[in-house]
Amino acid sequence: MSAPTDPTKERSQHEDDVLERIAKIVTRDTIPRGERHVGDDAAVLQPFLGEAIISTDVSVLGVHLEETLFPLEDLGYKAVMAALSDLAAMGARPRGLVVAVTAPPGTDLDALHHGVAEAARLTSTPVVGGDLSRGREVSVAVTVFGECPGRGAVLRSGARAGDVVLVTGPLGRAAAGLRRRRDGAPLSDERVEAHRRPWPRLREGMAARASHVHAMIDLSDGIGLDLHRLADASSVGFALEDLPVADGATEEEAISGGEDYELLIATNDPGRLKTVFCDRGLREPLAIGVVVQDSLVRTFRGEVFERRGFEHEL
Amino acid sequence: MSAPTDPTKERSQHEDDVLERIAKIVTRDTIPRGERHVGDDAAVLQPFLGEAIISTDVSVLGVHLEETLFPLEDLGYKAVMAALSDLAAMGARPRGLVVAVTAPPGTDLDALHHGVAEAARLTSTPVVGGDLSRGREVSVAVTVFGECPGRGAVLRSGARAGDVVLVTGPLGRAAAGLRRRRDGAPLSDERVEAHRRPWPRLREGMAARASHVHAMIDLSDGIGLDLHRLADASSVGFALEDLPVADGATEEEAISGGEDYELLIATNDPGRLKTVFCDRGLREPLAIGVVVQDSLVRTFRGEVFERRGFEHEL
Repeated sequence: MSAPTDPTKERSQHEDDVLERIAKIVTRDTIPRGERHVGDDAAVLQPFLGEAIISTDVSVLGVHLEETLFPLEDLGYKAVMAALSDLAAMGARPRGLVVAVTAPPGTDLDALHHGVAEAARLTSTPVVGGDLSRGREVSVAVTVFGECPGRGAVLRSGARAGDVVLVTGPLGRAAAGLRRRRDGAPLSDERVEAHRRPWPRLREGMAARASHVHAMIDLSDGIGLDLHRLADASSVGFALEDLPVADGATEEEAISGGEDYELLIATNDPGRLKTVFCDRGLREPLAIGVVVQDSLVRTFRGEVFERRGFEHEL
Repeated sequence: MSAPTDPTKERSQHEDDVLERIAKIVTRDTIPRGERHVGDDAAVLQPFLGEAIISTDVSVLGVHLEETLFPLEDLGYKAVMAALSDLAAMGARPRGLVVAVTAPPGTDLDALHHGVAEAARLTSTPVVGGDLSRGREVSVAVTVFGECPGRGAVLRSGARAGDVVLVTGPLGRAAAGLRRRRDGAPLSDERVEAHRRPWPRLREGMAARASHVHAMIDLSDGIGLDLHRLADASSVGFALEDLPVADGATEEEAISGGEDYELLIATNDPGRLKTVFCDRGLREPLAIGVVVQDSLVRTFRGEVFERRGFEHEL
């Protein structure tokens, strides 16, 4: 047992006591009838409707969040939203999440879990379980699971030549916010907030699935990388014509900045997509290009569109 | 990006390339029709039968495994088996798992994932997704999910006064193996193997559920802790009379050594339990005590049975 980094904390805390305290932070007062969340060997959920959709995402302090610029709760919040964005990209409805944390002694585990709890509450996703271990750094592994009642999940691989490519919103907001924070903007700055409080497009993903779109991906690493990933999976090319840049962001931030979490959609019926979005009170998606047969064709306004974006070094 | 710890490795490796290589290690040749595992934003599984059971477990190199005594693949193997043991404790049938890894540059990620893949293959549990991040230490967060067709999951909280307490096998094997390894025994030593290659009692858990047992927990942290946890959850006490100690283990190792992963079961019909186990070709469970009404009564052969076992310091 190494020494704590915060001498005002207890020297060490017993696992069961800590887990009980954290359970109170992340769990809700009402649990659906017949379900069992935190507190047993595993969580018990009522049967899923249709396909089960599952994704896991790990975030590390100092890698995914600059600890000198942002509070620890942001790591928990962003880890949950990043994972939920993967459900959005399949058109799935979230049913729950579990969170596994490593942290050095003295870490403010309450703050971290308050961020987790806030993101879970805002998206109506129950935290049904978790685990905690001592470690040399703070990491948060979030696993989300959802369901796809009726029609199946939307994959990356279904795009076809002639499909229209659309995006659910302007890009570059998160990257611009990070830049502003590095330049000294306060945490409360509107654009910094966009970086700290990303929003997974769950309703948009479900609306797109209901519209029978062909393919979908979330823009977690930037369109400069994620559009190529969708094209690779579908064995197609694309001609990108338009790129909606968020207010205050540069075109480069819109292309290669990650963490916007807008959805990129390919469909042969954009009219239907827009109607469904409109019916559900969602912002109209923006057409930005078309899918082409030749998988070697990857252009932006007629020029070669290089693969670039946030790729983690391992 | 920090320098690699192994200069024979590439300086850095791009995420998509590494993920593709690891996907080949952990995924299987045949994927059930209509399912989609590694490679999209999330995994797609065919509908679960009955309740969905979910658990997450994080293992850290140097905390859960002594890196000077054991190879890295053991961390992956043990992380998967520890998580699956939580499904066993609910009586659930595994449907899949996801694995989120953090590691410093230069880590032998192939070895780590070979351990994950071996455990998954031996238990017929597909690895359906994963994530990977650079970090300062090696950690493996495994999330498992299973189903409970028919009757619901077995909880910790259903034990009643008069129930017989049984265990699926002798205890202390893993702790004895760790002791032997620390004393210089080779990795191939039979007892060291018991420590390196734990086996989750999945078939036993399903048989117990089919036998309508009242409560169940897996002995991950030692019966000296886990029996108290079951009693706490059920608001009962217990009188422990017998304790099956594994060959080569001490009584203290049987009580407070963790990682045996035998199941502890409370039932009012031990005859039925034994019959079902026998019918399924499973080793007969051993009766070791009884549940009593008074939750303050916690005895072993008439003496107070103190709470002790492997509790992580946080």
